[in-house]
Amino acid sequence: MKATTIYAARDVRLEDQPDPTIQKPTDAIVKVVAACVCGSDLWYYRGDNPIKEPFRIGHEFIGVVQEVGSRVRSLRRGDFVIAPFMYSDNTCPHCRVGMQSACPAGGIWGRPAGDGLLADGGQGEYVRVPLADGTLVATRETPDAAMVPSLLALSDVMGTGWHAAMAAGVREGDTVVVVGDGAVGLSGVLAASRMGAEQVVAMSRHEARQQLARSFGATHVIAERGEAGEAAVLELTGGVGADAVLECVGTGQSMTTAIAVARAGATVGYVGVPHGVELPVRTMFSRNVGVAGGIAPVRQYLPALRDDVLSGVINPGLVFDLDLPLDKVAEGYAAMDERRAIKTMLRP
Amino acid sequence: MKATTIYAARDVRLEDQPDPTIQKPTDAIVKVVAACVCGSDLWYYRGDNPIKEPFRIGHEFIGVVQEVGSRVRSLRRGDFVIAPFMYSDNTCPHCRVGMQSACPAGGIWGRPAGDGLLADGGQGEYVRVPLADGTLVATRETPDAAMVPSLLALSDVMGTGWHAAMAAGVREGDTVVVVGDGAVGLSGVLAASRMGAEQVVAMSRHEARQQLARSFGATHVIAERGEAGEAAVLELTGGVGADAVLECVGTGQSMTTAIAVARAGATVGYVGVPHGVELPVRTMFSRNVGVAGGIAPVRQYLPALRDDVLSGVINPGLVFDLDLPLDKVAEGYAAMDERRAIKTMLRP
Repeated sequence: MKATTIYAARDVRLEDQPDPTIQKPTDAIVKVVAACVCGSDLWYYRGDNPIKEPFRIGHEFIGVVQEVGSRVRSLRRGDFVIAPFMYSDNTCPHCRVGMQSACPAGGIWGRPAGDGLLADGGQGEYVRVPLADGTLVATRETPDAAMVPSLLALSDVMGTGWHAAMAAGVREGDTVVVVGDGAVGLSGVLAASRMGAEQVVAMSRHEARQQLARSFGATHVIAERGEAGEAAVLELTGGVGADAVLECVGTGQSMTTAIAVARAGATVGYVGVPHGVELPVRTMFSRNVGVAGGIAPVRQYLPALRDDVLSGVINPGLVFDLDLPLDKVAEGYAAMDERRAIKTMLRP
Repeated sequence: MKATTIYAARDVRLEDQPDPTIQKPTDAIVKVVAACVCGSDLWYYRGDNPIKEPFRIGHEFIGVVQEVGSRVRSLRRGDFVIAPFMYSDNTCPHCRVGMQSACPAGGIWGRPAGDGLLADGGQGEYVRVPLADGTLVATRETPDAAMVPSLLALSDVMGTGWHAAMAAGVREGDTVVVVGDGAVGLSGVLAASRMGAEQVVAMSRHEARQQLARSFGATHVIAERGEAGEAAVLELTGGVGADAVLECVGTGQSMTTAIAVARAGATVGYVGVPHGVELPVRTMFSRNVGVAGGIAPVRQYLPALRDDVLSGVINPGLVFDLDLPLDKVAEGYAAMDERRAIKTMLRP
């Protein structure tokens, strides 16, 4: 099969790899229908995260089950499935409280699991899925082709935006600020809107992203950044600040803005992997602003989000503005790196 | 009247001061029945917080209304009242969502208010209370003398322990760890127990405090600190960690312990004023452990806690193990400083 390996910054290659096979009775083999490139893949692509040795990349995919191991109960050949960006057993104490991203038996795609066996990366033709029952979520029937982008978006960005909103404690009627207009931030806008927020403020200075934010339910767009952006939110909220804030970038500046625009007692739900973030504990304490979030337990949210997509309530697939065949994977990375694309879909 | 001023580290003096009078139509004058010394007063007493100039000290008191201004509606002369450790208007947007500690019109006792007028400190015979309607909470009738310690405890430590538990999101059936065995930590044990936690783990190595923790509902006591203490909690929770953690100290070590013993997805509710705390954002992110809390909006919790005290459901006054006349205020500080007392009550 063909699958993608990242060798070094700006060096991703689609290459021949062995077809994966069932290694354990809890495995499934999935034929990938669509995959995509994540903002966090760019940390490696841009050299911000070191690459000690080349690895198989991609952690977002949907597809069709080709084969299941003898102990897989909930899936069978032909099922259309969504994979979260981590696999998990969905039975351990962490999974049972909905924190599948902390599952000790779980792991990430493209790297060897605890047992030394590779869980393939998502940017390829096939994936061996460990712990298939605890990981994959199937649709009842094969969805329309038009549903593919939105179902794919659930594997990471929409589930992650949802986690930001959950961590921030968004409630009906709230005023919510979303810091970050990447695919996750835009998904956060959609999540807050779906949860019933009355005002959703997207902080974005890019025309196309502003429009997408509005189509996702943003009632206000603030183009200013830094102190000017904070002042604009405070003006909008009568000096009080937002009831909930979603931090979807992960930089020091974005976290500073997020904390500054939160009202007393509010929580900043953060899902941007922190790079250079220092939490100002005295400010947080004096203002009663909490921070919560982290690696999204997408598996928790998948069944409900799947139903929302299939019933047309949400359409998170609009974040994909570039649709390429898998053999153009390098161009897919380059387009996102150069901000020519918000998010690239790849079709094997 | 007599009232206490702190001049410098280890120099508190009870002195003659002018009797307070109504300055504004929203004021009340309260005759103090009982006051106390706070752990945060000790930051000044020990020289950890600088004293730029002497100030009137004490922010916890209960008493009887002597006089009210012409615009005070909810109180009258003779009412028995509990004061939270900050005053507030209870009408602004922050107050309306229960964050009275963020009230822009509010302030702290013993310092000049925004209008330049002194709100007296609590460790004295009388206090001018600004914004009396928004600040004081009355009992229906004058309570028994036996209720005095528990009602007094509501003015800060019990309301603060309650805030830690609220910020940590304690729910029925939870396993809750409380870091810190001072009066606030012990109150946190009581709060978690009152909220229906199934297991309440008090981290304490002092015999008397362990006993008090147990009488407040602690089901387990862990005497070890640091890594040994963390290991003990993890063993107790099957390696998973606690559903909610209350951090009631405010040091780097206590926060490190609190975060380490939280399960994935849990929140550390912190109310210890941070001194030397650095929040480990990458660890928090990778483990999905949030932190929330700050200066407790005690006014929010007072009506319900008052009812709990008066109906005998909680008895937070047990934290007082030293009962002195006001003219022994210096000894009251010394006893807490030397850890001879958990918390000192002062009676004018």
